[in-house]
Amino acid sequence: MKACIFDGRSVRVDPAHAEPSPARGEVRVRVLLAGVCRTDLEIVKGYMRFLGVLGHEFVGVAMEGRLAGQRVVGGINCVCGQCDLCRAGLPTHCRRRTVLGIERRDGAFAERLVLPEANLVPVPESVSDRQAVFAEPLAAALQIGKQVAFKPGRKVVVLGDGRLGLLVAQVLRTWRAAPVVVGKSERKMAILDRLGISHIAAENARPAKDAEVVVECTGSADGLAMAMAFVRPRGTIVLKSTVADTAGLNLAPIVVDEITVVGSRCGPMDEAVAMLARGQVQTEPLITVEFPLDEAPQALEAAAQPEAIKVLIRP
Amino acid sequence: MKACIFDGRSVRVDPAHAEPSPARGEVRVRVLLAGVCRTDLEIVKGYMRFLGVLGHEFVGVAMEGRLAGQRVVGGINCVCGQCDLCRAGLPTHCRRRTVLGIERRDGAFAERLVLPEANLVPVPESVSDRQAVFAEPLAAALQIGKQVAFKPGRKVVVLGDGRLGLLVAQVLRTWRAAPVVVGKSERKMAILDRLGISHIAAENARPAKDAEVVVECTGSADGLAMAMAFVRPRGTIVLKSTVADTAGLNLAPIVVDEITVVGSRCGPMDEAVAMLARGQVQTEPLITVEFPLDEAPQALEAAAQPEAIKVLIRP
Repeated sequence: MKACIFDGRSVRVDPAHAEPSPARGEVRVRVLLAGVCRTDLEIVKGYMRFLGVLGHEFVGVAMEGRLAGQRVVGGINCVCGQCDLCRAGLPTHCRRRTVLGIERRDGAFAERLVLPEANLVPVPESVSDRQAVFAEPLAAALQIGKQVAFKPGRKVVVLGDGRLGLLVAQVLRTWRAAPVVVGKSERKMAILDRLGISHIAAENARPAKDAEVVVECTGSADGLAMAMAFVRPRGTIVLKSTVADTAGLNLAPIVVDEITVVGSRCGPMDEAVAMLARGQVQTEPLITVEFPLDEAPQALEAAAQPEAIKVLIRP
Repeated sequence: MKACIFDGRSVRVDPAHAEPSPARGEVRVRVLLAGVCRTDLEIVKGYMRFLGVLGHEFVGVAMEGRLAGQRVVGGINCVCGQCDLCRAGLPTHCRRRTVLGIERRDGAFAERLVLPEANLVPVPESVSDRQAVFAEPLAAALQIGKQVAFKPGRKVVVLGDGRLGLLVAQVLRTWRAAPVVVGKSERKMAILDRLGISHIAAENARPAKDAEVVVECTGSADGLAMAMAFVRPRGTIVLKSTVADTAGLNLAPIVVDEITVVGSRCGPMDEAVAMLARGQVQTEPLITVEFPLDEAPQALEAAAQPEAIKVLIRP
């Protein structure tokens, strides 16, 4: 089958990539649409030392099993169910996990992929492919609410107006938090205006250590240092960026200001699909462009441009 | 009066330093004994850009006010009571605070110091000077329990066998946690043996991402990176080291493993004094040597030696 692979040196389309073959409990999914995430761009820089088919955001059609013929999205962590962390109720942290397009499992920038049947979530008719492809990053935004309590009226800052920041801000609003997005792009600021979400350009922001919560979605190794300037003493920073780079960082302010830093990764796919079905999150304004799978390498280049938001790949 | 000062270049004893003069609500304290903390050593390297009389760990005698003539220890944060953080119940984070020997207030390596009367905690007869001088770092150890819940039987690692690590391990045991101290010094390991606290030499430790809580007391900028190797996914790292250095750090594991990092600073002095009075913490084995105030610069040098634990200064 056709697939976009990273071989450790370059990204290219392999017209005859090995068909993924389902193990016990797994099913094949025909990919309808996939999304490019910053993590894909970091993998190409060496993050996770992943080799194989890129991509972990998708909507497709289950080719077999209980959901055969239905449109589905899928949780990306494929777990053993038996290690200490699985047994402790932390399956996304399974010590033996593979992760779609990220860790020892071919991903979604392909005609077909394979996932455990248990990972699949059906997509209702009312949710389009172009909405459903946002389920994975939306679930990652929802995860924040599993980890941090948001009290209405408290100041919440979202650092970064990228793919994830624009979803996080919309999710925060559904929790009656009043997020302020700190961004760089006039185009993305205009989208926030249309969504009715407050924002400020990074160069005009005057960090005053007064935000109860800062959600760091910069996609930059410097994001934590920025967040430390915005968060109030005893406040919380939610760290969302996974980047290959190393940051130079003086950690003393975390200690002196007794800040809590919470790392946050994957979230509940079923809740994300339900939120899309309720129309609580606008995704269409976040789509920059669609590429055919043949042009997947160009899609990754497009996604790396500063003004790009979500770039889609259609097999 | 005699005092040990840092002038931005060197540490020296000033035989005729200006007598500290109490503002409204403040009292003078005659210092009986003071302790050297790693923070003092960091200040001499430029941390906090502090200039003046060093030192913030002490026991003394109140020279005036309600506690006149009594032995006291004292909270080091001197607060305005009126800023947003004071009003929010976070006085140790007062935006206008001065901090004894750390921020815009002359410290304890002197014949006399000045603190707000409200900061003073009387020391019972049964607690010796050499015990009471540990009240401030012991309070800092107790602060951890205000921020993190410790469940009996869960694996807790203390990184660092220095001054603070040896107190933290003892405090954790009173909470029925079973700490394992990761250290470097044979001498300190022998002290832990006598205290009946588990330990392992850093070079033999095989970090396996399985500790529920890691308390980072290394006093090193690399402490967080070390802690990340020991803590389990969704576990907690308590960060205690305030160092002047910048660490090169890849933050991705915090996100991927959804780790919580909690900065932790000053704690409840009254609870620390009560704990000393109950004899729950052994301090005498932690005292390496006493210097007279005239030799305070040598005391700081001695405290910087790898095998040193607590070095005391007696005015």
